[in-house]
Amino acid sequence: MTLVNVWITECITDTGKLLALLTLPRHRDVMTSLGDKGSVHTQTKVLSQGCWTQVSCLCCVSERVEPLVLIQLSDNVQPVTKRWLISLIEASKKHGGAALLAHPGEDECGNVIVVSAPRCTLLRATEDLGLCKKYRNEEMASFSYHDRDNFTNVDDMQEFLTLAEHQYIVKNELDSLQTQKKQRIPGVPESLGVLEAWENICQKLVRAGVIKDIFPLHDQQRLNDLGRSWYYKKQIWGQPLDAIQSYFGGTVAFYFSFLDFYTWALVPPAFLGLVLTFLLPGGGGVVKEQAGEGVMEEDDNGPSVSGHMVQAVFSMLWSTLFIELWKRRSSSLSHRWGTLNLAERFAGPRPGFHGTLGLNPVTGRLEPLFPEWQRQLRVGLVSLPLVGLFLGLVVLGMTGFYHGEALVQGFHQDSGSLFSGALLYLPSMAHIVYTNMLGNVYHAVAMQLTEWENHREESSFQNHHTTKVLLFTFFNNFAVLFHIAFYKQDLPLLRKRLASMLIGNQLVNQCTEVVVPFIVDRFLSAPHKKEQEDNLEVDKLRAQRSLPPFPGLFAEYIELLLQFGYLSLFSCVYPLTAVLLLLNNITEIRGDAYKICKLFRKPFSAPVSNMGVWQTAFEVLGFVSVMSNCWLLLLSPRVQEFCLEGGISGKNIILLAILVEHVLILVKMILAFMIPDEPDWVRIKREQIEFNSMQALGQQKL
Amino acid sequence: MTLVNVWITECITDTGKLLALLTLPRHRDVMTSLGDKGSVHTQTKVLSQGCWTQVSCLCCVSERVEPLVLIQLSDNVQPVTKRWLISLIEASKKHGGAALLAHPGEDECGNVIVVSAPRCTLLRATEDLGLCKKYRNEEMASFSYHDRDNFTNVDDMQEFLTLAEHQYIVKNELDSLQTQKKQRIPGVPESLGVLEAWENICQKLVRAGVIKDIFPLHDQQRLNDLGRSWYYKKQIWGQPLDAIQSYFGGTVAFYFSFLDFYTWALVPPAFLGLVLTFLLPGGGGVVKEQAGEGVMEEDDNGPSVSGHMVQAVFSMLWSTLFIELWKRRSSSLSHRWGTLNLAERFAGPRPGFHGTLGLNPVTGRLEPLFPEWQRQLRVGLVSLPLVGLFLGLVVLGMTGFYHGEALVQGFHQDSGSLFSGALLYLPSMAHIVYTNMLGNVYHAVAMQLTEWENHREESSFQNHHTTKVLLFTFFNNFAVLFHIAFYKQDLPLLRKRLASMLIGNQLVNQCTEVVVPFIVDRFLSAPHKKEQEDNLEVDKLRAQRSLPPFPGLFAEYIELLLQFGYLSLFSCVYPLTAVLLLLNNITEIRGDAYKICKLFRKPFSAPVSNMGVWQTAFEVLGFVSVMSNCWLLLLSPRVQEFCLEGGISGKNIILLAILVEHVLILVKMILAFMIPDEPDWVRIKREQIEFNSMQALGQQKL
Repeated sequence: MTLVNVWITECITDTGKLLALLTLPRHRDVMTSLGDKGSVHTQTKVLSQGCWTQVSCLCCVSERVEPLVLIQLSDNVQPVTKRWLISLIEASKKHGGAALLAHPGEDECGNVIVVSAPRCTLLRATEDLGLCKKYRNEEMASFSYHDRDNFTNVDDMQEFLTLAEHQYIVKNELDSLQTQKKQRIPGVPESLGVLEAWENICQKLVRAGVIKDIFPLHDQQRLNDLGRSWYYKKQIWGQPLDAIQSYFGGTVAFYFSFLDFYTWALVPPAFLGLVLTFLLPGGGGVVKEQAGEGVMEEDDNGPSVSGHMVQAVFSMLWSTLFIELWKRRSSSLSHRWGTLNLAERFAGPRPGFHGTLGLNPVTGRLEPLFPEWQRQLRVGLVSLPLVGLFLGLVVLGMTGFYHGEALVQGFHQDSGSLFSGALLYLPSMAHIVYTNMLGNVYHAVAMQLTEWENHREESSFQNHHTTKVLLFTFFNNFAVLFHIAFYKQDLPLLRKRLASMLIGNQLVNQCTEVVVPFIVDRFLSAPHKKEQEDNLEVDKLRAQRSLPPFPGLFAEYIELLLQFGYLSLFSCVYPLTAVLLLLNNITEIRGDAYKICKLFRKPFSAPVSNMGVWQTAFEVLGFVSVMSNCWLLLLSPRVQEFCLEGGISGKNIILLAILVEHVLILVKMILAFMIPDEPDWVRIKREQIEFNSMQALGQQKL
Repeated sequence: MTLVNVWITECITDTGKLLALLTLPRHRDVMTSLGDKGSVHTQTKVLSQGCWTQVSCLCCVSERVEPLVLIQLSDNVQPVTKRWLISLIEASKKHGGAALLAHPGEDECGNVIVVSAPRCTLLRATEDLGLCKKYRNEEMASFSYHDRDNFTNVDDMQEFLTLAEHQYIVKNELDSLQTQKKQRIPGVPESLGVLEAWENICQKLVRAGVIKDIFPLHDQQRLNDLGRSWYYKKQIWGQPLDAIQSYFGGTVAFYFSFLDFYTWALVPPAFLGLVLTFLLPGGGGVVKEQAGEGVMEEDDNGPSVSGHMVQAVFSMLWSTLFIELWKRRSSSLSHRWGTLNLAERFAGPRPGFHGTLGLNPVTGRLEPLFPEWQRQLRVGLVSLPLVGLFLGLVVLGMTGFYHGEALVQGFHQDSGSLFSGALLYLPSMAHIVYTNMLGNVYHAVAMQLTEWENHREESSFQNHHTTKVLLFTFFNNFAVLFHIAFYKQDLPLLRKRLASMLIGNQLVNQCTEVVVPFIVDRFLSAPHKKEQEDNLEVDKLRAQRSLPPFPGLFAEYIELLLQFGYLSLFSCVYPLTAVLLLLNNITEIRGDAYKICKLFRKPFSAPVSNMGVWQTAFEVLGFVSVMSNCWLLLLSPRVQEFCLEGGISGKNIILLAILVEHVLILVKMILAFMIPDEPDWVRIKREQIEFNSMQALGQQKL
């Protein structure tokens, strides 16, 4: 790395102004560094200090500017366009700018802009986001810009805000750039480059092809430190969650925290599964002896009646406890990370949001407005039926497949020719093609629908989109299993299918997710890396773009959810599920960690207070699992036989199962209600914040 | 009424001080009245003005003090005790008093104290309660004492706070009187009269027999006005809800609002019931012809299959819509009445609350503390199983009754003697005695348990107590019907029982609730009233004590809930239920109104933001009704026959019913989720209040 003495006091910036400001003593901490000027050799990470645009207020002057976000422009961008964009980024808010710092890269013709943020912009954004930070009394408190001097570390922005928060704030400020009146983008042909009044500038520039990408930059030093304590670690348990939160941000940290918690939670069911499978083998005493050998052959390695019961009731209680305890864990993490009191509702709308321009009745700001009832109507009357339609199409496809298979098999038995033998593969191939096409169409439709629903908040948008895709993926994956369990009522087949799906999926996932990219990264791209060593620093930054963008956590979460589904919905059929999942998760933690650190571009990650809709999905699955377990118990041939021997008629068994199901759901609801969603101490902290805010309102003279 | 000139400027109070303060010009509005002194002849309602204790600050001096609450002391109370109590009531907060105004009644030996409240105490309490009041910009805003001059009507306390709020505040202040150190109550024997440090004074005085009663006083003029626009009105629809809220307070107003809403909501099911009963008579086309006459005789007046279906699905949808729309109505009422933002959590604990003395971690006040988890454990591990045990005893009693009846009937058939004939009545008599005793024991246990759970907030206490009693009452009332429907599976009997219960209950209720008390009040106690006319004013106030205390709204709510239960759980058996309920409700509104105005002492009524646990109860009943309706549909002989003709086996009908049940519950949940719980405009107002509070916190320098 290039060491540059920070005491460059005179430097011509690209706009030609003298950056004399840097010589002025900085707000507080530069005063001390003036004292021992000789020893101050702070490393500027990458770029030459002087080329940053100037800051507008004294307190933001800093001897070190960290590059946070890279804007990759198109290769044929005009210098005039780039200058215009830089001036927009550096302009103050009241002049319609983003009040950030920009660096033109190697020169003003290059196709990158590196962006950073001055202290005041960061602090104001912290207040707007509603982040909680440590107050001087060591308690967390909602950050207030007016009261900033009472917060700890407020003079050292590296300590005060995490890297992920820095980068999210920069992205947020760039995203909220808006025109105030109609204007042209300089250097862009008129057909593309006209901005309407109040149009979102970044979105427009992307559409006009000026901006190709905006992504946060890795800090190699910290990334290596993080990796050492994360995936290169020797112990199996434990992840550096705080460091992950600090480096990758809220959503990523919540995913890994959940993965961690889930892995721990798998220990009891795995233990029970092992006991049921190996210590209580076969049919369990009385029932086996009476069952004979002929009929029950295929059910040989299934658990006994009491084992079935134990497994089903345990699974039900376990899933409830798991979710309830996770909620508590989640709220204490949220307190720790200062996101207990986020103010997303009161922030500006997300970039894609549109509506008639008006005054927000709550905040009084000028912004697009869209009535809530209209959104609800769109969700209820259009999205819901459309999603239902697609789920219906999945079922239709499956029915068609089974129908076709029976048809083809009949034909093959009749004719027995080579042609009819080849025809046997047709239904499953047609089904695969159909499912894939349907999936692609659905994903496009789901995105369009969610855009059209016009959600004001990013989290609301994400939740609605996730719910849609989630429902479909879940249906797609479980339709076959449900068909086997509820329609064919063939438990041995279900058991086989479940085992092969679990093991097959795991192997495939681990391979595609980790092993292949690892090999590619380690052995194929290593020499390429060496070459770059002597290049310009800006090129190194630009090189991060060669990594593929992070695909988001959706695939990771859905994997966990499907696993949880196998476990809670059907585990009483195959008790070893939990053991397999436990093994899978231990490698999954390392695999995912390696992946996010090494194989992808760094993602932006918003501060969040929980897992959002995923938590609900796990909770709903818990309820569905009660129904499914009751049903499987009812179907289990041994249980049926057991009941028949006890003189209970088939109709009454069903009625009994209904009763048991309703009682178990009631128990589950009471349990969920009894366990508070947040630990007492978090509740008290939250109420303290609320109380203080109420008190403040009382004391304020308007 | 006695007209007393308010300009009594010199009056020796009972403590012998000169109440010269009254001559001082009052904060704002007395200045104007000084101008036209001659015309000011304000009525003091009842008591001579001068005998009120003095106010401590100038702004509270008022030319008219309204008697709000009467403390009835025991007949043999010592004057020294009464003086001590009065001095406690008038003392300022920092001297451990209640900062209220007291009046000794006719003289200092009498056994009443009349209490009122000065302006400052009222305003501070308004802030502490978290009431919203109209701001100068005509919006509702959380009242703040510091900012009081910006609220409308703040100088006219009669306009600013409702009578019910006045009285609730006085009760609240009296209830929160606490000793600061150990002391003796003067004039009370030492065995009874020693107050420990931080003991609740009012509770102690009640236990020591000094205070017999504390109740709010009626304002006859306003009561008569209210009655004229309420129960003496000619039109059937509409109640003066705002006037009710103002005079009787939140809980009462919410009850009557709900009754009103419920009555309106009954119109569609009543209409459907009439159509199904009279326009589509008997068996409905095809089914009837095929059913023959022999088997179906007893099912003659039941609705047809399609009628059944329509009724069941309609009932399910209706109950969901009803509750969801009521939630919206409730939140808009709550906004209208300024209770959207109540701060009960941050107020002091309820009088019965005990714990170790410590600093409240949220508010920082010294008060008894009790850990939340311990309360949860008590609820979960003791209360829940005990309530379950009692419900079990109800079922046991019913089983015993049926068992005994069968036994006795067998015996009677065998012997046929007079003795055995008389014995036939034994089981039902034993069951009645058993049920009554169980009920009494349970009520005592429920109260003790809820006390022992040690809830900090009054609303939480009420909710837990109500839930306990509610569950039991509901079980007691519906056990027989459920037994007939689910165990005996005898629909014609269910229909008969339902009709007789509905009509019988209504007749009995209306008689005992309204007609009898009305006759007693009108014809028997009228001469007695005349006599009192010339008595002292204080005696008139005291005479309000001769009325029985208001028994609370529990009985009224449970009546509505049971009705709603009959309607939603079993209505597809007897479609005329809604018509009967509609008729009942129309008289119920007037009956309840008359009752609360005329026949009982005025109750204290807290400002509340909704119906509390009753809303949940109605919601839960809605879900139970889906299950019950599916089951009844399944049992209905016509439906079963219809299915058998369609070639569906008995087992498959049950499975179909389960499927339908689950789908309907899903639809219900989606519907409940889709309809927002508060109208958009209320949401915006609520968010405005939250946003302002957040902004205030941001601007406050700590």
